[in-house]
Amino acid sequence: MFNKELRYSREFEVRFSEVDIMGVVWHGAYPLYLEDAREGWGHQYGLCYDDFLRNKVYAPIVDMDIRYHRPIFYTTKPRIDITYQYTPAAKIIFDYEIRDTADDALLTSARTIQAFTDQSYELILENPEFYLRWKEIQGLY
Amino acid sequence: MFNKELRYSREFEVRFSEVDIMGVVWHGAYPLYLEDAREGWGHQYGLCYDDFLRNKVYAPIVDMDIRYHRPIFYTTKPRIDITYQYTPAAKIIFDYEIRDTADDALLTSARTIQAFTDQSYELILENPEFYLRWKEIQGLY
Amino acid sequence: MFNKELRYSREFEVRFSEVDIMGVVWHGAYPLYLEDAREGWGHQYGLCYDDFLRNKVYAPIVDMDIRYHRPIFYTTKPRIDITYQYTPAAKIIFDYEIRDTADDALLTSARTIQAFTDQSYELILENPEFYLRWKEIQGLY
Amino acid sequence: MFNKELRYSREFEVRFSEVDIMGVVWHGAYPLYLEDAREGWGHQYGLCYDDFLRNKVYAPIVDMDIRYHRPIFYTTKPRIDITYQYTPAAKIIFDYEIRDTADDALLTSARTIQAFTDQSYELILENPEFYLRWKEIQGLY
Repeated sequence: MFNKELRYSREFEVRFSEVDIMGVVWHGAYPLYLEDAREGWGHQYGLCYDDFLRNKVYAPIVDMDIRYHRPIFYTTKPRIDITYQYTPAAKIIFDYEIRDTADDALLTSARTIQAFTDQSYELILENPEFYLRWKEIQGLY
Repeated sequence: MFNKELRYSREFEVRFSEVDIMGVVWHGAYPLYLEDAREGWGHQYGLCYDDFLRNKVYAPIVDMDIRYHRPIFYTTKPRIDITYQYTPAAKIIFDYEIRDTADDALLTSARTIQAFTDQSYELILENPEFYLRWKEIQGLY
Repeated sequence: MFNKELRYSREFEVRFSEVDIMGVVWHGAYPLYLEDAREGWGHQYGLCYDDFLRNKVYAPIVDMDIRYHRPIFYTTKPRIDITYQYTPAAKIIFDYEIRDTADDALLTSARTIQAFTDQSYELILENPEFYLRWKEIQGLY
Repeated sequence: MFNKELRYSREFEVRFSEVDIMGVVWHGAYPLYLEDAREGWGHQYGLCYDDFLRNKVYAPIVDMDIRYHRPIFYTTKPRIDITYQYTPAAKIIFDYEIRDTADDALLTSARTIQAFTDQSYELILENPEFYLRWKEIQGLY
């Protein structure tokens, strides 16, 4: 038995202000690309920031790893693919790939890991109830 | 024989605009902290962006990994320590730690890896001459 | 005789990272909204950054005035309207309004003025040829 | 009788990430310069964000006008001067000038106006008590 892949893709525009003096997107702008992708994924699969807030749970990023294989230029038309990585642990793991839509070349790979905390930022060590219910609805084991 | 540690430390202010709706510094603001630290380190050890430019070499970030152990609040007085990691390969590796000056608690750990490219973004596989000379001056082997 | 109105409208999402500790979009995030609007307007009316670059002309912002009437919240669904303001002078003037799509309330008014410069940032005091041709095509006098 | 001038000056560094593809600081980065200046002024004259919070008052920016006379380059060493502008109205007005320390050339002029609101963002039409006390201490009339 395996889990279906929960993936979301979005083509996006490079903003003028994201491009640095060397003509490429400044590496520090990428966390925003990853966050936009998480928000799009959240809307598609019904797990948004609001759901966490309503249940008084935060899901802060505890690890972000970005590998910049090739630069993104102002003229690049990139596409980001974000895929939920199943884990039974009390974490949310996403893998990301940014590709050049012109030739599907892999530009960037990334991973983020989120943990659960209460609103005082104390770590929650079990998966919250609402999150377990969401996993069930998605058919994840 | 071992290499001396090239370390730079700086206490810094949290900007109002870096703090998000949950009262903590947004995770995507940290690359700026790392970059400020690299610039401070570069001035202290005589290896700056201008040196690369003059030699027609870029040193783009190819890997950035940030581990967020504890949040940074608007009231936190953080200190960042950046340490050059020796490698004979054609890369520049830095490790970072952000600590709370109040109790020296470790808030964040990070690593960045830079590679060398020419101005067309083609990878340069040997250490550039000017960088080897800088290593000599620093007494690094 | 009067000039037709060149207007572009776009509904947009508030990003999590744009909202500050008080729960509203930080005032310094708005220039990005204005810039996104200019880029959308440029695509709609055929006058983009690339056209300027090709003609070796820059059109830097020389004045930006933003009036924040009401805050934008994370839950707000805003719409920005950007309207080209005709002038015979060698400038590009845009007026902006950001409205709450829920009730059309006016949240923000803004104006940007761009001048023309060459690539050494020296002011160009007449309208560039390609810009005059664009005005003709648009039927502006 | 006249009011003494409450001015704060700070030399600052241009960050690599603030410089755009044309080699100058992107216009949208300036609000951060103004905010840093307000924070420095606040510390110098004893009127900080915390004072407002403690009194359950917000002082959001209601108007920001920036005039970009000359560009700021990566190599520029700028200085920002922020001067409090006296008004009896329930507002806080600051004027700013950014100058090139190399020749004192005026690069940027700006003005921000802040109003007072309660924590529901309802406008407060009289000067808050703590602010009036601060004005007295400063000898302002």
